[in-house]
Amino acid sequence: MAMNNHVVINEVGPRDGLQIQSRVLTVEQRLQLVNALIDAGIRSLEAGSFVSPKAVPQMAGTDQLLAQLPIPEEVAYAALVPNQRGFEMAMAAGSRRVNVVLSATETMNQKNIRMSLDQTRQVCADIMARCLADGIEGQAYVAVAFECPYEGPTSQSEVLRLARDMFAAGAAKVIIADTIGAANPSQVSRLMSALIDEHGADRLSCHFHDTRGMALANVLAALKLGIREFDSSIGGLGGCPFSPGASGNLATEDLALMLQSMGYQTNLDAIDLVPVIQLAESLTGAELGGHSYRWLRRQHDSRQAQGAPA
Amino acid sequence: MAMNNHVVINEVGPRDGLQIQSRVLTVEQRLQLVNALIDAGIRSLEAGSFVSPKAVPQMAGTDQLLAQLPIPEEVAYAALVPNQRGFEMAMAAGSRRVNVVLSATETMNQKNIRMSLDQTRQVCADIMARCLADGIEGQAYVAVAFECPYEGPTSQSEVLRLARDMFAAGAAKVIIADTIGAANPSQVSRLMSALIDEHGADRLSCHFHDTRGMALANVLAALKLGIREFDSSIGGLGGCPFSPGASGNLATEDLALMLQSMGYQTNLDAIDLVPVIQLAESLTGAELGGHSYRWLRRQHDSRQAQGAPA
Repeated sequence: MAMNNHVVINEVGPRDGLQIQSRVLTVEQRLQLVNALIDAGIRSLEAGSFVSPKAVPQMAGTDQLLAQLPIPEEVAYAALVPNQRGFEMAMAAGSRRVNVVLSATETMNQKNIRMSLDQTRQVCADIMARCLADGIEGQAYVAVAFECPYEGPTSQSEVLRLARDMFAAGAAKVIIADTIGAANPSQVSRLMSALIDEHGADRLSCHFHDTRGMALANVLAALKLGIREFDSSIGGLGGCPFSPGASGNLATEDLALMLQSMGYQTNLDAIDLVPVIQLAESLTGAELGGHSYRWLRRQHDSRQAQGAPA
Repeated sequence: MAMNNHVVINEVGPRDGLQIQSRVLTVEQRLQLVNALIDAGIRSLEAGSFVSPKAVPQMAGTDQLLAQLPIPEEVAYAALVPNQRGFEMAMAAGSRRVNVVLSATETMNQKNIRMSLDQTRQVCADIMARCLADGIEGQAYVAVAFECPYEGPTSQSEVLRLARDMFAAGAAKVIIADTIGAANPSQVSRLMSALIDEHGADRLSCHFHDTRGMALANVLAALKLGIREFDSSIGGLGGCPFSPGASGNLATEDLALMLQSMGYQTNLDAIDLVPVIQLAESLTGAELGGHSYRWLRRQHDSRQAQGAPA
């Protein structure tokens, strides 16, 4: 085990998860979910995004949400911004941490946001530079970092180049995202080793999807190299439209359970996430729960039956 | 990646999986499942057990099944035996590989088979000795090797002692079983490292359950140490009664997909397992499928739509 025993679980359900749900939650409902997550011990969370409410009605009112977030002095809340206009809105709303997304292939950028890779790269670099100048924490996602649904396997040198660009522009952190859940542990070891050699493990994070069931094994591969921050989504909320439930985003409860079992400090007890998953299910109407959910629910129910605090 | 790129996937669905299904299959149905598994590329398989048909009606007629197994010259078929009488039956049926199960805690042996740990150890050692004398491949499972549902965490030194005893008695292989799916990758690394130091990786195998979602991560931990054989069950068939489907046994398709993605040779393409899972579902009436099943089914369907061989 590495010397640093503390692992940050960055919860992305309230943004990455909610944004593709067919049911649009109110700001109050989103806040209810965030409050439950924070109560359970989450201390890093992507709260929302400043995108067009016409394009993504699920994220409308993120400024109102940000104004009401609990214990902001103790929690690192991030807002995703797609462009300068979004960045201005995030600043106006008082964001202290801003995320941008840069896909590592030309086609993914074109299909996703109708911009070339070079244009997106410039927009993201400008925002990272603004973050640095304004004393805001800028975080850059490199999406489809392992495989692109349009172009196939992603070039590692391209991912390295984009990460280098983002750090050079002022990013505090680069998050390597396996957007379609195609990575395997060997690929994770290879890419993350190269990134760690250049930038150190502390400024890197990983975002895995569980489409092919390998998310936790991928976490383990990155963990062994010294990565100490991972994205996940409560109950696996979000992810690929064709695979509801746990096969989208890595579920927070699965990540939390593995890490705590291995002796890492995450500020979470996975069993405490059970009522949060149930809340997310009732709010979204989606069937949720990672691979460990049934087991956790049993533990939670038996703990409650014993009269211990849930 | 280690030098040895070949990994054996030992399929346990036809025994470990079927024995706890409420629907009792006929010998012909069990043979149908075995045939489908062999057609998909499985070359190591636990075919059945020689236990009392009154106690375990699911395994009645294992001698008839063994007589009809396909390409026995190319497949390592195992039969589980609980005692000398079972061993005699396995010999009469022409078994070339025999499995015994020894739980690592006193209470588990008492509860499971109403014998003391010492009694079970003696029975297993005697059978392993008989195997060695008769030129049969004897394999000893050490069950609840990480945690016991009655006694809690299992003593590592006890597991080491039992493995040593089984090898000393004549076992060709010892299989470390996380019977209740409680192990995490750190524990796997610790225990398997100690076992490998004593016996070498080639004579060891691992059997993981996915109750807490960590089975593939545990495989990865063992793989990194040089373990090249793992048990799994088609569609996750079997496992804990309280967690149907994928949260019992590690699903063969999940294991096969991760290993092939990482470049290991297993003689399997996980996509070819889709019709086998469907067959197992129709035979047992159970809802099956590991974490990758939805994704694999999509790949399988699109491959079929393109007219390629399924």
